[in-house]
Amino acid sequence: MKKLVYIVIIGCGRLGSILASDLSQQDHEVVVIDKDKSSFFSLRQGFSGFSVTGDVAEMNVLAAAKLNKAQVAIAVTGKDNLNIMVSQLAINVFKVPIVLTRILDPAREKIYQDLGLKTINTSKISAIAFLQTLQQQLTVSANGRSPVHQ
Amino acid sequence: MKKLVYIVIIGCGRLGSILASDLSQQDHEVVVIDKDKSSFFSLRQGFSGFSVTGDVAEMNVLAAAKLNKAQVAIAVTGKDNLNIMVSQLAINVFKVPIVLTRILDPAREKIYQDLGLKTINTSKISAIAFLQTLQQQLTVSANGRSPVHQ
Repeated sequence: MKKLVYIVIIGCGRLGSILASDLSQQDHEVVVIDKDKSSFFSLRQGFSGFSVTGDVAEMNVLAAAKLNKAQVAIAVTGKDNLNIMVSQLAINVFKVPIVLTRILDPAREKIYQDLGLKTINTSKISAIAFLQTLQQQLTVSANGRSPVHQ
Repeated sequence: MKKLVYIVIIGCGRLGSILASDLSQQDHEVVVIDKDKSSFFSLRQGFSGFSVTGDVAEMNVLAAAKLNKAQVAIAVTGKDNLNIMVSQLAINVFKVPIVLTRILDPAREKIYQDLGLKTINTSKISAIAFLQTLQQQLTVSANGRSPVHQ
């Protein structure tokens, strides 16, 4: 079966491994890069892509992942600076049409958006999920019903 | 002004500090605990709560944060095992009515939900946000319009 889109995922931590597994199962051609070989163990069984071990800040590692052929690059390491640097290389050097960048520090998000990056702030998204769940629980509690764990 | 709800936040990393700042600004009484004193620098200026420095796995640290008086406990350290342990103490020892627990490893979520914990899987929530954004970008691209950064 022809693969849909060629996607390079930079960083195979918890978030990267979920994305790699899900996108691979959606029949995209996925390559995932991480400096730590053991991080690939967290890829689920359905993962049919490739993994490249190496420092994602090095051009030859990005080249080994054929970033120049990618339609999509997703930078999801745990380090904001690294995600930014790799995303800028993906856009400007490897000419990847769609680049998504994880941001952890809310204070930096605006700056990076101003640089033209499509950022996703995972800390903020997580905080919103907590605040919504808390609001639901407080409403349940105020209505005299017991919270979930009681 | 009377504070609304007494909330203890365990872990003042990026997620914990956003929650502490936001909930404090919503006029809740917030106490945030972290072993690393410098982590409190990330609290925003509007934060009017208290911070407790100490190992959140120690009972006397949780007691110093008056967890026994809390209506809400939110465990958001970067370690799943620590979040689980503290949440179970909050429920069973300190009798906190509402306890929310951050989970990072999707493989463990089901087990912890079976233990009666109200878990929020921030890795999964972040992955969903990426997948949705990617789908939007691919649709834009397929429609012949340029992706965001071009």
